[in-house]
Amino acid sequence: MDLLSSTPLACARFVTLKTTHGALPKSTHFLRSRFPTFSALMSPPSTAVLYENHGPPDTVTKLVELPPVEIKANDVCVKMLASPIHPSDLNIIEGVYPVRPPLPAVGGREGVGEVHCVGSAIQGFSPGDLVMMSPPSDGTWQTHVVKDQSFWHKIDKDTPVEYAATVSINPLTALRMLEDFVDLKSGDTMSSDIKHVLVITGDAIVQNGATSMVGQCVIQLAKLRGIHTINIIRDRTGSDKAKEKLKNLGADEVYTESQIDVKNVKSLLANVPEPALGFNCVGGKAATLVLKFLRQGGTMVTYGGMAKKPVTVSTSAFIFKDLSLTGFYLQKWISSDKTQECREMLDYLLGLIREGKLKYDMELVPFSESHMALDKSLGKLGSQPKQVIKF
Amino acid sequence: MDLLSSTPLACARFVTLKTTHGALPKSTHFLRSRFPTFSALMSPPSTAVLYENHGPPDTVTKLVELPPVEIKANDVCVKMLASPIHPSDLNIIEGVYPVRPPLPAVGGREGVGEVHCVGSAIQGFSPGDLVMMSPPSDGTWQTHVVKDQSFWHKIDKDTPVEYAATVSINPLTALRMLEDFVDLKSGDTMSSDIKHVLVITGDAIVQNGATSMVGQCVIQLAKLRGIHTINIIRDRTGSDKAKEKLKNLGADEVYTESQIDVKNVKSLLANVPEPALGFNCVGGKAATLVLKFLRQGGTMVTYGGMAKKPVTVSTSAFIFKDLSLTGFYLQKWISSDKTQECREMLDYLLGLIREGKLKYDMELVPFSESHMALDKSLGKLGSQPKQVIKF
Repeated sequence: MDLLSSTPLACARFVTLKTTHGALPKSTHFLRSRFPTFSALMSPPSTAVLYENHGPPDTVTKLVELPPVEIKANDVCVKMLASPIHPSDLNIIEGVYPVRPPLPAVGGREGVGEVHCVGSAIQGFSPGDLVMMSPPSDGTWQTHVVKDQSFWHKIDKDTPVEYAATVSINPLTALRMLEDFVDLKSGDTMSSDIKHVLVITGDAIVQNGATSMVGQCVIQLAKLRGIHTINIIRDRTGSDKAKEKLKNLGADEVYTESQIDVKNVKSLLANVPEPALGFNCVGGKAATLVLKFLRQGGTMVTYGGMAKKPVTVSTSAFIFKDLSLTGFYLQKWISSDKTQECREMLDYLLGLIREGKLKYDMELVPFSESHMALDKSLGKLGSQPKQVIKF
Repeated sequence: MDLLSSTPLACARFVTLKTTHGALPKSTHFLRSRFPTFSALMSPPSTAVLYENHGPPDTVTKLVELPPVEIKANDVCVKMLASPIHPSDLNIIEGVYPVRPPLPAVGGREGVGEVHCVGSAIQGFSPGDLVMMSPPSDGTWQTHVVKDQSFWHKIDKDTPVEYAATVSINPLTALRMLEDFVDLKSGDTMSSDIKHVLVITGDAIVQNGATSMVGQCVIQLAKLRGIHTINIIRDRTGSDKAKEKLKNLGADEVYTESQIDVKNVKSLLANVPEPALGFNCVGGKAATLVLKFLRQGGTMVTYGGMAKKPVTVSTSAFIFKDLSLTGFYLQKWISSDKTQECREMLDYLLGLIREGKLKYDMELVPFSESHMALDKSLGKLGSQPKQVIKF
């Protein structure tokens, strides 16, 4: 019985060759990992948000119980603690995103959990470790996730789980976008009461969708480098409150779209330099506003299209204002063999979070209410903070 | 009388302090150079296409005789032989271009001529030399131009004047755009009958406005490097003839806009690789067609906007197709202290021209008919080849 007694906490060994599949469709994909070999180490059953076909996320997903799966030698079984709902997660379910997991599939691609048990060859993880999924991968919206150890990154147990669950996509996007496109000059970050005579003025950036999680991170990460931010938000009820919130995070300027409806947007800038870099996650008119603020030779990076409208650019903006437009896709950045570099940056961001220097709005939702969280994420209930499922 | 006998051919020395100004407005700008100092070397009078105010080029310009101007020690007086009419020349007269010469001004910025006489300190130029204006500068639409020697570049007397008059803007734009944005892989340039087994396939580019002078040069300069070209032209009467012409210049593929109205444009490419670089001088739908052809991670360079419509780009083209958009403005390139480098490239291009390897459509127009040439350049008589004034 040595074999059994060495089994990690709460994982079971099966001696039969088959397991049940419940009401699950018997696709090759699911069957592969659900036919355990003799004396296989098995996960607990997992409650999951599953979809069998692409379509509207609120109709094609359902909460199901998945049977135990085999934990192979290099696998780690993680009891999930939290996982966010991103627009891209919804697009994947809709089938309109380049990432297309084989169906049926469990939703979600980012999250944090506690190691439940580990495969026989695992040395770097132990039950109870706090781990986040990195790089992002399919199937985080379930109570137990079994994946190769290469998908898990051990983090400090003091990290608030809702931040650990959300740091690897949006905050990392903000950090990369500030670093990868324009060599921004950092400025003086000292508080005004201890400033010397010599004050170094940092560069500036401009962004739309500033209330988004990426937007909030951009403001704070820029502030840490003494880089000014000009922030554009939608006109809506509560925009004054949103402005105040962003200013409290360190935003230099916050304008609603209608406030920028002036001939010379540069007149709004006061003491903030003309921005060298702009971020667009909206498209349409909001993208044009970013372009208007940019300085000669500036660059706009598109990383989202919330308004579902294209970006329109005048010929003279290219020729005479010498603007460049490009895009950012985190998935591509991560997949270019940068897992280690990526994890170092996540540790940096998590450090800032633990120090209270990086924060953003989220709404934690119990797993049992994940359908309500989906509805909120789909915009059915108006503008809502990022929904994070708590298991 | 030694002083007078050393005076170069046909230039006169004045001993009075004043000269006449004809009916010219006595603006400071004009007066400055038209009050000769004692014993000043003077140019012949110059017949010029002048405008006193910005407006429609066909109404605000007039043919006038300008009085002699002083030739200072470092000036070269050039009897103009040929000068083209570019869209940008028209925009300058309209006052809608960033280049704004003080008014009144003589039109034109590019041209070739023969040295008529030189200032007292000039050593590198002699009467009879063939010289082109480089870098481009105001006032080439006149019979005699007096400018500092730094504006003139001596060229081989065998150069056809219509090419010498037009090489420094459009062909140079084509050359720079092929070099400056994407590191294009050159391909095999041998004719098919002497090809080895190993054929190196060069990269490809795609361009709209392919019948333009820049477009014609792009095709030929690319061909010289074994780079494939996909060319988009407007749907119009005679497009078959235009296609044939471009193919004769070396174009791999030529499509009218309506021919590209298919779901998968890549299916049109046959054996030509997906292009890494695109050139847009039209805007609107024609720019979208260039974007459609570009390969993942491709770059589109905008250098003109003939359709007067903006460029529209989808969010997914930035994020998932990873396209980059930028602009090219020759004036900026030249003004960044690259006169010498620029002239070396012009010599290279003129060499190709003399060897018959670079040619393009032009229509030579006698100076006396410059108003007709203006009308043609303004599009009043339908699509016309580049108009080049011959003095």
